[in-house]
Order: sequence, then C-alpha cells, then structure tokens
Amino acid sequence: MSSQEKLVVIGGSAAGMSAASRARKLRSDMEIKVFERSPHISYAACGMPYLISGRVKTPQDLVAYEPEFFEQQRDIEIFLNHEVRTIDIARRTVGVQHVKTGAETKYHYGKLLVTSGAGAVVPPLKGIDLDGVFILRSLEDGIRIKDFIDTMRPASGLIIGAGSVGLEMAEAFTERGIKTTLVERLPGILGSMDADIGNVAIEELRDKGVSVMTSRSVVELVGNGSFVARVSLDQEAPVEAGIVVVSVGIRPNVSVATEAGIELGGTGAIKVNERMETSVPGVYAAGDCAEAYHLVLGRNAYMPLGTTANKQGRVAGENIAGGDACFSGIVGTSVLKLFDLEVGRTGVSEQEARQERMDYIANVTEHRSRASYCPGRARIMTKLVADRATGRVLGAQMVGREGVSLRIGIFATAMMAGMTLKDVASLDLGYSPPLAPVYDPVLIAASDLMKLMKSG
Amino acid sequence: MSSQEKLVVIGGSAAGMSAASRARKLRSDMEIKVFERSPHISYAACGMPYLISGRVKTPQDLVAYEPEFFEQQRDIEIFLNHEVRTIDIARRTVGVQHVKTGAETKYHYGKLLVTSGAGAVVPPLKGIDLDGVFILRSLEDGIRIKDFIDTMRPASGLIIGAGSVGLEMAEAFTERGIKTTLVERLPGILGSMDADIGNVAIEELRDKGVSVMTSRSVVELVGNGSFVARVSLDQEAPVEAGIVVVSVGIRPNVSVATEAGIELGGTGAIKVNERMETSVPGVYAAGDCAEAYHLVLGRNAYMPLGTTANKQGRVAGENIAGGDACFSGIVGTSVLKLFDLEVGRTGVSEQEARQERMDYIANVTEHRSRASYCPGRARIMTKLVADRATGRVLGAQMVGREGVSLRIGIFATAMMAGMTLKDVASLDLGYSPPLAPVYDPVLIAASDLMKLMKSG
Repeated sequence: MSSQEKLVVIGGSAAGMSAASRARKLRSDMEIKVFERSPHISYAACGMPYLISGRVKTPQDLVAYEPEFFEQQRDIEIFLNHEVRTIDIARRTVGVQHVKTGAETKYHYGKLLVTSGAGAVVPPLKGIDLDGVFILRSLEDGIRIKDFIDTMRPASGLIIGAGSVGLEMAEAFTERGIKTTLVERLPGILGSMDADIGNVAIEELRDKGVSVMTSRSVVELVGNGSFVARVSLDQEAPVEAGIVVVSVGIRPNVSVATEAGIELGGTGAIKVNERMETSVPGVYAAGDCAEAYHLVLGRNAYMPLGTTANKQGRVAGENIAGGDACFSGIVGTSVLKLFDLEVGRTGVSEQEARQERMDYIANVTEHRSRASYCPGRARIMTKLVADRATGRVLGAQMVGREGVSLRIGIFATAMMAGMTLKDVASLDLGYSPPLAPVYDPVLIAASDLMKLMKSG
Repeated sequence: MSSQEKLVVIGGSAAGMSAASRARKLRSDMEIKVFERSPHISYAACGMPYLISGRVKTPQDLVAYEPEFFEQQRDIEIFLNHEVRTIDIARRTVGVQHVKTGAETKYHYGKLLVTSGAGAVVPPLKGIDLDGVFILRSLEDGIRIKDFIDTMRPASGLIIGAGSVGLEMAEAFTERGIKTTLVERLPGILGSMDADIGNVAIEELRDKGVSVMTSRSVVELVGNGSFVARVSLDQEAPVEAGIVVVSVGIRPNVSVATEAGIELGGTGAIKVNERMETSVPGVYAAGDCAEAYHLVLGRNAYMPLGTTANKQGRVAGENIAGGDACFSGIVGTSVLKLFDLEVGRTGVSEQEARQERMDYIANVTEHRSRASYCPGRARIMTKLVADRATGRVLGAQMVGREGVSLRIGIFATAMMAGMTLKDVASLDLGYSPPLAPVYDPVLIAASDLMKLMKSG
C-alpha cells in the first residue's frame, strides 16, 4: 500500500463536504473519500419547506454543488449510495455497503471523520406507515412530499410537532392551499421558547388560518384504504388530514460510531473536544451527529443546525490536515421566518434558565423597528435573560415583522463576547429613522433589564 | 437662597433632555432648568429629510415630547427662546438672554451641563444669502425648506456636500419631483467611506436620476432677483437650481464654553472624560458639542450623532445626580437609507487606517442577504479592515438592498468587544433561507480576510 495519507469521510452533507474541502485546500497530497448513503450530497436541507411551498422551483436549486464539482475541482472521491456500516478502529478500516447492490467493501483510513448526521424521530403511532405520512429530513423526503401534494392535491394536512420545521411546514402547506392543523404535545412552540414570544407566533399562525393545538397528542393516524385521511387526538375531535408530516425532533445517527467504541456525550451525540476529535485518536466527528460546546450553558449540548455543521466541518478538516483549529462553540442561535413574522432566539430562554437553576433576571420589552414617525415600522417584542449578580447576558428571544433575525445576531455576538447588560445598553449601533430608532430595541431591552438587576 | 441643588442645562435637545430626565429620576429634590434658544425641544433632527420629502406629514410628528411633558411629568423647567450667552465659572452663574425680548437674567447653578450642540458650517460663497439657499440643522430649517418647496415648487435643486444629510436630501428632493444635483468637493461621498462601497451608492443616486459630481466645487450661487436660480461650478457648466441646500459639515457650538475657560479637545469640541465631565469641576458636556472616546482610534473623536448624544446625556445626568456612570465610547457607527439601498459603516475605513498609519489588511467581499435559492435576496458588498498582526477588526463598511444596517450593528458589537477576524468568522449567527444564508456575509468577510492575514 502507498504511504499516502487517507481521509475517509462518512456522510456528504454540510459538515462532511466542508471538512473534505478544507483538508484538500491545506493538503494536496491527501487521498479523500466521501461515502454518502443517499443519492445526493451537499444540498440545502433547510430549504426544503420552500421547495414544498413552491417558492423554490426544483430540487436542483437546493443542490449547492454537484459531485462532479468535488471530484473534478477538488480531487475528492464521492461515493453516492454508499453506506458505512462498520468502523474497525484497530485496523483503521470502514466497511461500506452499496445501498442498491448490497456489495460490501472495506476501505483503509488514516484519519476518519464521522458526519453521519441525524435522523427524524418517528413515534410508534398506529397508522404511521400509511401513504401520505411523511418525515422531512433528506432531500428525497422533500421531493416525496412535494410530489405527493402535486399529485394528490390534499385539501387538508396535519403537522405533528411545532419546532422550526413544523412551523415552516405549516406555512408551506398554507401556501399550497392546504387547510392545516399543527399539533404540539408541549404547551409552547419552538421547543423551549418562552410563551411571551411563542404566543405571538401562534397568533400569526392562527391569523393565517392554521389551526394550532398545543398540549395535545396524536393518538392515531386513520386511513382510507392505504392513504391517511384523519388524525385522532386526545381531548379534541378527529381532524381531517390528507397529508401528515411528523416533525417531532431528530436524533443523532451514532450506531456505527458507538459499535466501534467511539464515546457519546451526555446528550447522546458523539462527544468531541474543541478540535472536533472524538474519544478515539485520529477519529473526528462534526455536524448533526456531534455535540457542540454551548458557551452559555458551559457544557456540550446537542443543537444540530446547518451553520454549526459547516463551521465544525471546517475545523475538523483543518485539524485532519495537520492544522490546529478550534471550534469556538455555539450560543444556541436559531431564527425562523413564519409568514410575515421573524422569530429568533439565542442563548437560554427563561424556562431553560430555571431548569438550569441559574440565578437570572428576565424581562419583556416592546419597541419599534424604526423611528416612531417612519412608515413601515413594526413592533418588536424582546425577551431578555441575564445573570442577576453580574448582568451577563444569558439569552434573547425576539419576534416581529422585521429586523429580528439580525438583532438576534447582535445579541449572539454580545453573548459570545461575554457582554453584560451594561455593555449591550452602550452598544454603538446604527441609527437612521427608516432603518432603526435612536434607541434600538436591543439597547432598550438591555437598559430596561438593568433596572431589575439593581432593584434586586 | 435655598440650599436645594440646582442643575442648569444649556440646550434642550437629545443630550440635554436625556440628562435632565436621568437626573430627575435619580434626584427628586434637585432644581432643574433647561435653557433652549430655539422654540422647540426634544425633536428628532434626523427625521427632517423625511419631513421635507413628505413621508413624515407634519413637524409635530418629529417632536418626541412637548415642554409641558417635562414641566408637568418630570418637574423640569423649560425656557424656550432663551440663549445662554455667558458662563461665570467662579460665581457659578449663567447669563441668559431672551431671544425675542433681549432681556438678560443671571441664574445660579450648582451643576452645569453644556449641550450647546453644533451648527452648520456655512462656506463664504457669493450668493449664499439668496432666498432659496438653506442649511438643514434645526427644526425651523426643516420647516423653512418644506414651506419653500410647497410654495415655490422649484423644478431643480442642488445640494452641496455628500455626507449623510446631503444624500438624504438628494432622496427627499427627488421624491418631491425636483431634478437634483449633488456636488461634493472630495472624490468620494459619505466622508471617508472607501470608494469600493461609496461608488455603489453613487450608482444608486444616478439610477434614481440624481446628477452626482464629485471632486467639484461650487464657485458661486447666482440669483434671479432675490432668489437663487443657478450654481456656478469649477470644471462644469453652471447648473440650474431653484433651491440649494448646503450640507458641508457641522462644527460644535463652543464659544460660550471656551470664553468661560472650559477646555476644548484636539478636535475643537469640548473635552470630556468618560464621566462626561469637562476640565471644570461640576461642569459637564454631552452631545454634538462634545468629543467622544473612539474605541478603535484609541482617542477622543468628534462624530456628532443622535445616538451618542442620547447616551452621553444619560451618563452626564446620572453623574450630575451623584451616580457613577461611564460612557463606553463609540466605534463610529453610522447607517443610511438611500433610495432602495442601505449603506453603513463602523470603525475606520481603509483611507482612515492609512491616514492613521495603522498596519492593516482590508478586503471587499460580495455575498447574498439570503440563501441563493430564495427570492428577494440581495447582494451585499462588505469592506472589512483589520489589524494585520492580531486580526483585530478595525472597521466594516457595507452596502446592499437589505440587511446592511443591522449587520453593521453586528460588526460594531464585535469591535466594542475587541474581537478578531477569527472570533467574527466563528459567530453563531442565525440562519434561515429566507432571512440569511448559511454563511452570513459577516462570516464570509471575516473568514476571507483571515486568509490575507496568514499570507502576510
């Protein structure tokens, strides 16, 4: 065998392709193989609701790069429809199965990167296998849902789970003219977002015709022939639904890694250090299968997102190529467009601060996105959470018709810098009447919460 | 005389009224008098271009609070049309003249706050006193310009000076159907903004029908009777102009302070420490008449803006009331809407970095405001300047059709925290296809400039 260093990457999505590209950039001599079990690599998973709604025209629009690009431009070998089934740490090999032919091959690696992603949680509901019941995880899922709607033209639809994907799907269904019901087991939406902010999003959904049921569970999916037709709920009358999307969460794909003896963290995802190395020397992990250090919680967390996957992949790739990069960690930022609203959060919510037994203060402020006399201004509601003793900002949640997503970015930046309320209240932010009020909602929220800190 | 502590505030605009309100909040026992030489207090000066364009309907819309509000709700005495002419530091008195009657009165103070603002620079041009030639500084100026346009309906207009006010006035004139010429003595617009970004704004102005002439000077304003009719320029044919606005800059109103022996800083504005105290104990200054500590330059600068005035006023008020507040400083953030564009900057431009003999690196990147496959996305051009050795961010300039102003806020936050390019490239910013791309323009700009740092 040649002495050329070999990198094997398990998974060809954001983390895997970022890492492979970074490694190639730094090391022209490395052999790089990427095994992807689906027929696609490098696609924009977060764009699928917009494919389904029709705003994005074709699945091809979501594909960032074709395999040929990586093969020809970056000298990275791409194996589509190839699933890595086993890792042999001692022998430094992976066992790879061709998804279609079933043929198995072993490949040697010098360095291994696990970006096996995450899979949708599928609750064991009666009727879950009916036609017209979908999860939304891979590009094929997105294409299947779109085709089903195009062909079957369901008049009604139901979404189980009011996380980001559930909310985006509620919008997509509504835009397709489907009468939509959204069912969430918890009292609130968007996971642990506080009700102050979440309720504004619920109102928006209802305004746009979505029937939102929180603190409700699905009991059974009922078919008409092989197709789903109705959903039974606890404490509610059954709901008609010609299509159902299950989006109750995702869990990391870790079985192959676990069987090989790679350690998991407390969250159930693969444990990594800041260099994205696993417990096994020479084996790295990144993206939706891995944990990420959460700067506010001060420990590893599992918050799989596309942005984190890209950044972690890049760090892993750099280190695999012999560099010394560190992943700075996350603060739990996530933003969402919901009909005419922007909704966003970063850091911890009040609920989470309470669960974490943090000594916190929190408030809700409302302010304008532009000067009071400027047409087009919107109300922005901000919930801010800070450490009672030091005033360090722990989390921000915002909702409004404009100017939310990037203001969440300002809070995220402030938290990554460890800023206090006083620091945030003093930020030199831009002011121009048609763009922002003289006291920006960010400053108002911080300045108001400071008072609470002082009053004890 | 009573032993009650007396605060005298010179000037009733953003800084003065913020200070008076803050002092009152902390000290119910203090006597507070505000002397304002104009007939208005507490109005939104930055909104005047929108009054003139017609987007804001009446001058009243720009008045944040009426004098009665301060008198009745906050127990602050407001003296409109009262100009402070002298300060006697030794006797702790101010000499105040009623602007209309000429009557002079002396008032004692225990603490004094100077917020005398700034005045427009008026170049000694021939014809500057013609009817139809205006500066835009006070609310009365704004009302006069609006009335002139309403009454005289000028077909053509010319603006001298391409700073923020000049650009906003070019838009306002154009919206009023006035054929507009913008003349700037310097090669670029918006002061020391670099040409990479400034030229995009110039293109936008030209697209919207504004004739932009840079590196050109006005020689003379020529009248037809008492009214301005034409403007002579060097190296250009004369331009018809039934209205002219001069916006070539402002300078701090410091004569009364200087005569009293209050020290000025190197910029010519009143020197203050971080508590907003002047060189004279018990005398404070804030707002457009005062300097502000610039965190990137590492020294006091003169960048008069409404946001800074509000914050400085608040700090001064707190300290006057016996508190111990510090002004955190500025990073030189300013943003602007220009027709369909947002333009913004924070920190230093490349020109300024060169003037300051900083060892810098700089680059220009272009990226999208939303995911590539999302309708409504806009190109954002970013110019970033950083310290070559450490990678500390020194400045950012951006232009694009959306998402500029708040991204400048993210850079400003990063600079106030002393972040490096690596810190910025790792920021956990929000991502959602219709709101932001997976690699935000902020991250792309930082990450790209890092390469330049490494390559030396």
